[in-house]
Amino acid sequence: MRVAWSRLIRFVATDGRTLYGEPILTNPDFDIGDTTEKTGLQAKVIKGQDIYDTTGATKVTDDVVTVKKLLGPLAPMDVPILRCVGLNFATHIREAGRTQPPFPSIFFKPSTTVADHGATVVIPKIAQDDQADYEGELVVVIGRDAKDVPESEALNYVAAYTAGNDISSRKWQRDPAKAGGVPQWGFSKGFDTYAPLGPVLVSSTLIPDPSTLHLKTIVDGELRQNAGLDDLVFSVSRLIAHLSSGTTLQKGSVIMTGTPGGVGAGLKPPKYLVPGTSMEVNISNIGTLRNGVDFA
Amino acid sequence: MRVAWSRLIRFVATDGRTLYGEPILTNPDFDIGDTTEKTGLQAKVIKGQDIYDTTGATKVTDDVVTVKKLLGPLAPMDVPILRCVGLNFATHIREAGRTQPPFPSIFFKPSTTVADHGATVVIPKIAQDDQADYEGELVVVIGRDAKDVPESEALNYVAAYTAGNDISSRKWQRDPAKAGGVPQWGFSKGFDTYAPLGPVLVSSTLIPDPSTLHLKTIVDGELRQNAGLDDLVFSVSRLIAHLSSGTTLQKGSVIMTGTPGGVGAGLKPPKYLVPGTSMEVNISNIGTLRNGVDFA
Repeated sequence: MRVAWSRLIRFVATDGRTLYGEPILTNPDFDIGDTTEKTGLQAKVIKGQDIYDTTGATKVTDDVVTVKKLLGPLAPMDVPILRCVGLNFATHIREAGRTQPPFPSIFFKPSTTVADHGATVVIPKIAQDDQADYEGELVVVIGRDAKDVPESEALNYVAAYTAGNDISSRKWQRDPAKAGGVPQWGFSKGFDTYAPLGPVLVSSTLIPDPSTLHLKTIVDGELRQNAGLDDLVFSVSRLIAHLSSGTTLQKGSVIMTGTPGGVGAGLKPPKYLVPGTSMEVNISNIGTLRNGVDFA
Repeated sequence: MRVAWSRLIRFVATDGRTLYGEPILTNPDFDIGDTTEKTGLQAKVIKGQDIYDTTGATKVTDDVVTVKKLLGPLAPMDVPILRCVGLNFATHIREAGRTQPPFPSIFFKPSTTVADHGATVVIPKIAQDDQADYEGELVVVIGRDAKDVPESEALNYVAAYTAGNDISSRKWQRDPAKAGGVPQWGFSKGFDTYAPLGPVLVSSTLIPDPSTLHLKTIVDGELRQNAGLDDLVFSVSRLIAHLSSGTTLQKGSVIMTGTPGGVGAGLKPPKYLVPGTSMEVNISNIGTLRNGVDFA
């Protein structure tokens, strides 16, 4: 599907307004995640009620403004719900001590998890004990309601792609003393700010085949995750077909496609998020999502 | 908290409008779930943008109308998300072959699962093979944003209670051939129409202590579930305190508090939902939520 923009950012402009805009890239290799007031990124204001509109009602205007502070491309209220895939890279399935599932392993995050690019992830009191972890992921943004969509048509429902970080609490997720006998993926990954998204939505017209993308997660300057999206166990098309079975994937809802090996819990010894940890999720053709960490 | 109404219904009036209203009960024992055009229920129209308003902006008016068709009290768009508790009655924990968890076992249903009182639950193609099941539950409606709420203050965030039916697909939920090694509660219970709610919201001012309520589920005229809400492993207050840890429970979101023993999968032999099955979830002081079943 073809929306009004090629790339979409959400930002505070130098005049104080919070806006959606199409960034003006003078250098095609510029990483929008590097935007600071100093780099002076400019954008054309996007006007319209619905950023996924395809009727012409939403427009990229000629109103050019300067970005003062880049936010995430989506506010929590823009995202009805986040569907996430738990085990979708062989490398992560191995480090988690699991076997490859016959169908995608799905859990949900509420929209209140959505956090801006540049925002601090806040670890709540009940999850500060050696368990907070990052998971770099490719994120699919659904642009129109999708139900019972065959795999062959699935990509027609994708408005855009972005990067995401599926922040996780390993003890609440799987420690029998907390989770009991049933893994608690939704609760353990569902705290406020636990889904940073960004730095930009890139229209699916610019990424016709998401399996060509490459993902890296860098934590405190260390490369921790490094994988091609052609290594997904279940492809983006397959995920949309499966998830839309008997279920309406609402416009604006997102799918987090799963993380490769290299999470903090899989390191020897494990390294968990603490106040001051810096996290970067970089995806080719999208850019770098940067977030800090603090304890509540 | 005290909202503008004591009981809230959503309905099609005889003049064709879809409205929220306060039902006029001439007999205090009248079960609102028995409402038909013939019983001639009347209601005072509720006017206002926010049914949970406590400022006086939303009002029960003197505009009396006749109910033609009762819907559920909440439309899907009224409910940001549904949080559900998997194992919260000892009788159901036993029949599911599980042990009592140390903390509530949580999963999420998307708002697209919400179905009206009187509506038909539609079982999608992928879940028609001897696995669709009912779960009668008490449902808590959060009336204002709640985060890090102590157990002692939790009930102050409850606007109302209603009945719910947590429709479930047992094979997608736990069969290793479908779910793999990780129980898939969210996906298996997340299909469109899989959360009928109703028949009425009853203000928490009328139900100061939800543990005094009693729940019955009747399927095809047979009493299948029969339990007091004082049998919950984790009380309503405890659930709100746990779920709001580090997490904003948004106004309008609901908590389904768990089902007692007596689900179809626990019967010997099991009895699953098929086209034409009639389901009733009755809760004292609330009424009877009635739904049919069909295959997509």
